[in-house]
Amino acid sequence: METKKNRTEKRKGNLMSVRDDIKVLDATIRDGGLCNNFMFTDEFVQELYKTNIKSGVDYMEFGYKASRNLFKEEEFGKWKFCKEEDIRAIVGDNISDMKIAVMADVGRCDFKTDFLPKSESVIDMVRVACYIHQIPAAIEMIEYFHELGYETSCNIMAISQANLNQVEEALEMIAASSVDVIYLVDSYGSLYPENAAALANTYLAAAEKTGKKVGFHAHNNQNLAFANTIETLSYGVSYLDATAQGMGRGAGNCAMELLLGFLKNPKYSLYSLLTFIEKYMIPLKQEGVVWGYDLQYMFTGQLNRHPREAMSFTADNRSDYCEFYKSLLENF
Amino acid sequence: METKKNRTEKRKGNLMSVRDDIKVLDATIRDGGLCNNFMFTDEFVQELYKTNIKSGVDYMEFGYKASRNLFKEEEFGKWKFCKEEDIRAIVGDNISDMKIAVMADVGRCDFKTDFLPKSESVIDMVRVACYIHQIPAAIEMIEYFHELGYETSCNIMAISQANLNQVEEALEMIAASSVDVIYLVDSYGSLYPENAAALANTYLAAAEKTGKKVGFHAHNNQNLAFANTIETLSYGVSYLDATAQGMGRGAGNCAMELLLGFLKNPKYSLYSLLTFIEKYMIPLKQEGVVWGYDLQYMFTGQLNRHPREAMSFTADNRSDYCEFYKSLLENF
Repeated sequence: METKKNRTEKRKGNLMSVRDDIKVLDATIRDGGLCNNFMFTDEFVQELYKTNIKSGVDYMEFGYKASRNLFKEEEFGKWKFCKEEDIRAIVGDNISDMKIAVMADVGRCDFKTDFLPKSESVIDMVRVACYIHQIPAAIEMIEYFHELGYETSCNIMAISQANLNQVEEALEMIAASSVDVIYLVDSYGSLYPENAAALANTYLAAAEKTGKKVGFHAHNNQNLAFANTIETLSYGVSYLDATAQGMGRGAGNCAMELLLGFLKNPKYSLYSLLTFIEKYMIPLKQEGVVWGYDLQYMFTGQLNRHPREAMSFTADNRSDYCEFYKSLLENF
Repeated sequence: METKKNRTEKRKGNLMSVRDDIKVLDATIRDGGLCNNFMFTDEFVQELYKTNIKSGVDYMEFGYKASRNLFKEEEFGKWKFCKEEDIRAIVGDNISDMKIAVMADVGRCDFKTDFLPKSESVIDMVRVACYIHQIPAAIEMIEYFHELGYETSCNIMAISQANLNQVEEALEMIAASSVDVIYLVDSYGSLYPENAAALANTYLAAAEKTGKKVGFHAHNNQNLAFANTIETLSYGVSYLDATAQGMGRGAGNCAMELLLGFLKNPKYSLYSLLTFIEKYMIPLKQEGVVWGYDLQYMFTGQLNRHPREAMSFTADNRSDYCEFYKSLLENF
């Protein structure tokens, strides 16, 4: 049997080869929606949908299935809730090879009432997001969605703050469930390629035992989102999250244009994405929607902390980086 | 004897350990000078000098020793020429542990007339920059500077376009010279961590045979400058170039603040640098000095090309990324 140590040393494929197991997931509307309260125009979402199909993207995540009991519909754009009819208004019956994903947060989703059976839904995959102490609740949801006929993933957030025993135990539990993909999520953007790779190998060792795939979702707090994505993929991670221009909460995510430029499979095309970026993403930034690497996110990434204070710093248009850094050190 | 293959697998130290062989070099004035024609105020350079000392930086590069026959003095700031008296006006006799470096380009430097013997100069290290076909000329300069009493490095630029045979032959020649440090320079920002590491291991294998050190100078065209720097260092590269906020030609360099936040040696301090960034770097950006990752540099990085067209695109304030990308593909 392959030991975990052996796995770490072994890369799958190389910089010239095509990895047919790779699946690229566009999370622009979902993670990017955290930057503008999901207030995208229908045209934006429609064009991104078409762009993703042309670019060879494998999954497009439309947003959250958030509880309408917990969150008021009038305070958010529709992609916070991803009603079946709203997705269908964009994709019709989605007569493409690209699959449709939505995210369901443990504890913030009325999953027993808000999902149709897969046979009646245009959604293909439900991504269940949880913290490591919520694994049992996540598994309950995963089994429910699996029963309904959906593909599922389990996205364990904030993994850089969990200890290795917890991680291994969680992975064993999830790997024994009906889940299809287990995601390593660097919520705080605090992983370096070396420890992202080590964690990915731990995930892969657990996942491969029961035939599960492993995914990676990066954050760019230390400007490492793309680097960590291609490092973990080199060891066998196959589900890769990215967003147009890295749009996502705080420092944002792995930029889709960097990822598509890197992947060698000719099915992925950069040019379609560029036309979308030029026409839709750059105006979005000019309108004042803010995301991306900046010093305040570097601080929280280096300190392995939730970016909430950095997000407030950004929202308040502050530029007193030194004072902010000192306040972080004082509240450590 | 250790084979090259074995080296590749072996990291030196880990994410928790201190590597006493590490030397951090601040190249803000030299590479950053390419963004503003070296027009820094004396106050800026003076404060950066003090900041680098406080931050534990090991070398500060002041600029080029460019030929005053080739370049008109009145068209550039003084750090294009780095006259002894100009450096001394900032550093006095440099009564600090930090060393002073300047860069001398093969073919663009009157090295036989423009350098004092080390005993009369406040400069400690001369970095000889060359393309791979200029190695014999670089070695002539290195031996000359060595005779004068300086530390020397050989910075072979644009290495991503050289073939491996050339690289190995060049390394053998340089390793046999009096040089102290051999630099791997990713001029086009086209290396991924995986091939940066492979090249670094090739450099290390050649350098270690004759007791030379290896350095790395990154460019951020694919947002990988920091990632490539810490990846190559993990295999034994010990001279690390960085600049405040990554200031440097085109997409810029490895950001010093990311590097200082990563290094575990307590001699390196992030806070002093932050005060400099807040007071001097952010105003510089606001004044309109432009550098840093953007799509046009990603294109040239992905295509392994000189960034000159991307720099023109930036200088012309263009935002027609798609047209620009197509023009690059047409002129491939």
